[in-house]
Amino acid sequence: MSTTAPPATAARRERLRELLRSAETPVDALIVSDLVNLRYLTGFTGSNGALLVSAGGPDADRICTDGRYTTQVGAQAGDLVAVIARDTPAALLEVAVRAGARRIGFEADTLTVAAHRGLSAGLDATTELVATSGLVLGLRAVKDAGEIALLRRACAIGDEALAAIIAGGVIRAGATERAVARALEWEMYARGADAIAFETIVAAGAHSAIPHHRPTDAVLADGDLVKIDFGAVFGGYHSDMTRTYVLHHAQDWQREIYDLVATAQAAGRAALTPGADLRAVDAAARDVIDAAGHGEHYVHGLGHGVGLEIHEAPGIGKLAAGTLPCGAAVTVEPGVYLPGRGGVRIEDTLVVTDGEPDLLTATDKAFTVI
Amino acid sequence: MSTTAPPATAARRERLRELLRSAETPVDALIVSDLVNLRYLTGFTGSNGALLVSAGGPDADRICTDGRYTTQVGAQAGDLVAVIARDTPAALLEVAVRAGARRIGFEADTLTVAAHRGLSAGLDATTELVATSGLVLGLRAVKDAGEIALLRRACAIGDEALAAIIAGGVIRAGATERAVARALEWEMYARGADAIAFETIVAAGAHSAIPHHRPTDAVLADGDLVKIDFGAVFGGYHSDMTRTYVLHHAQDWQREIYDLVATAQAAGRAALTPGADLRAVDAAARDVIDAAGHGEHYVHGLGHGVGLEIHEAPGIGKLAAGTLPCGAAVTVEPGVYLPGRGGVRIEDTLVVTDGEPDLLTATDKAFTVI
Repeated sequence: MSTTAPPATAARRERLRELLRSAETPVDALIVSDLVNLRYLTGFTGSNGALLVSAGGPDADRICTDGRYTTQVGAQAGDLVAVIARDTPAALLEVAVRAGARRIGFEADTLTVAAHRGLSAGLDATTELVATSGLVLGLRAVKDAGEIALLRRACAIGDEALAAIIAGGVIRAGATERAVARALEWEMYARGADAIAFETIVAAGAHSAIPHHRPTDAVLADGDLVKIDFGAVFGGYHSDMTRTYVLHHAQDWQREIYDLVATAQAAGRAALTPGADLRAVDAAARDVIDAAGHGEHYVHGLGHGVGLEIHEAPGIGKLAAGTLPCGAAVTVEPGVYLPGRGGVRIEDTLVVTDGEPDLLTATDKAFTVI
Repeated sequence: MSTTAPPATAARRERLRELLRSAETPVDALIVSDLVNLRYLTGFTGSNGALLVSAGGPDADRICTDGRYTTQVGAQAGDLVAVIARDTPAALLEVAVRAGARRIGFEADTLTVAAHRGLSAGLDATTELVATSGLVLGLRAVKDAGEIALLRRACAIGDEALAAIIAGGVIRAGATERAVARALEWEMYARGADAIAFETIVAAGAHSAIPHHRPTDAVLADGDLVKIDFGAVFGGYHSDMTRTYVLHHAQDWQREIYDLVATAQAAGRAALTPGADLRAVDAAARDVIDAAGHGEHYVHGLGHGVGLEIHEAPGIGKLAAGTLPCGAAVTVEPGVYLPGRGGVRIEDTLVVTDGEPDLLTATDKAFTVI
């Protein structure tokens, strides 16, 4: 009996194996070809690879990658037997068929039509490829303790980086959006970020009314709303936070929409309880904005899951389906955008718990004039 | 008659339209759902969108995105009529059917099995979804003048950034791989990079034998091979360059494999002529390494196309198919990796021309002890 604790990735594969056995359409094995799911289930971070998970038990599991990653796969996923091949799903399909699997699942959410045709081509009539959807995504929606620790650190890096550029006077009239974005990213790297979580948004003045604005050489001016939406990656996990400030001198309309968004955001956070209907969570914040007559100026969902990807399950919006699991890490990010004038978004990342949601992004949200 | 030149994106759509009319399986319209292809054909950079290109002519072309991007799509693709919807391929399929299209192409290389099932669900028997492969990728393989200018600037940013960290003494014994990577990225941003082209590789000592190594807190030491593979994004276009140095004191085996890789790389560059068989280009470099008995230590292809993506058509390797078009932008990057000891890779980005290839990465390739 081993005295070493099995890695978290092995426990995740066991949870997946249970799903394969209990699913409505049971399969003998699943080929995981999505690279993020592969990382989640094995720790392997190469750019080509796939995993075979056998319903029968872990001894038949195999990871596959190509010759560039022979060393790396041993270091990152040494608890799995590795197959070295270039076309990784095809190689694992062959392994599965040789081992007697007849119903072999694939990930329909990410496998392309062309890849599926390639896999189907060589199969005989006794073997069936079975479309599966959302199996690993569903597991990923509930974070384990190790994942929450990484998310917490990623969010802390974001908090500290934003505080550093504010203390350094980077957000000032005369600075370009691009310069603010680069300074923020530099501070995240300096605090140990592996990477930037997504293209940093710094949007000043009328640009702040564009929900997803790429930083330009536009110059921040006194009186501008400055919307900053950014995140860090730490150990593969993404943080996501938005804060909106006013430069030097605030106008009444800016304070009004800020207060409205802040009220809606607080309502959204308060709705984060285990088992809550995802549309009800969205509505908790949206109703506040609708009631103030700004519904048409709020053009996106309330939030999204965050983890190994910046957008993952569960999505929280008007068209969402399902409920919020305990342990989900999600953003809450309502906004009001007045075209040609400016916009406000306030966003936190939180983990759903049995008690109060665990707020990972700690930066102050009070209306602030810089 | 308009006196304004049409945008490059409109010319690209016309080239695609010709393919739709002349393809072996002609279609009435094509739904472009791949976001990079969408950017190439329209200029739109949002994270959700699709394009309908009609074989009949440009008046029936439509771009589709969701409400977050209403302003942005007008600014970036104002020459196209925009449809605002959340499920963009589905909305464009409806537009196409309403306009009388019966054979409607989709991009099988990137559309997922699940998305395809969703599109198929609502169709009547008179409408057919037709799988297409590589249509836009094929166009993208030949760069136009505007694209080459952006690639040239992206490569120059890489050259200048590497020169800056060498001049600044960043690559020295005692520095961590991670610190070197971050310094290089900072210098790229400082020179106007929009983003980092891919996860920067800084691999010292035995790590240099791992073709794709993520920077760690490992410390560079005297006598190490230090392999640096990195790039910048400028205007959406990616640069890609690898240089390998020796710290302080070189051993004979390091110089030997360096000279071998340099000779192979020069042979690969010399083989870049319009119409060359892609496998012959790969072989030109590989034969040099094989002849020296190091074939087993060279575990990847010679290179790849580079443009809006870091890896795009054409691939240059043992299993490649086809020929090299004039105007292709490609990398040439052989390597020799001795597990546990160290490795060398030398990589340039070049454009294939009727004469000498146009070398975009200008950093010196002579054996260099730092």
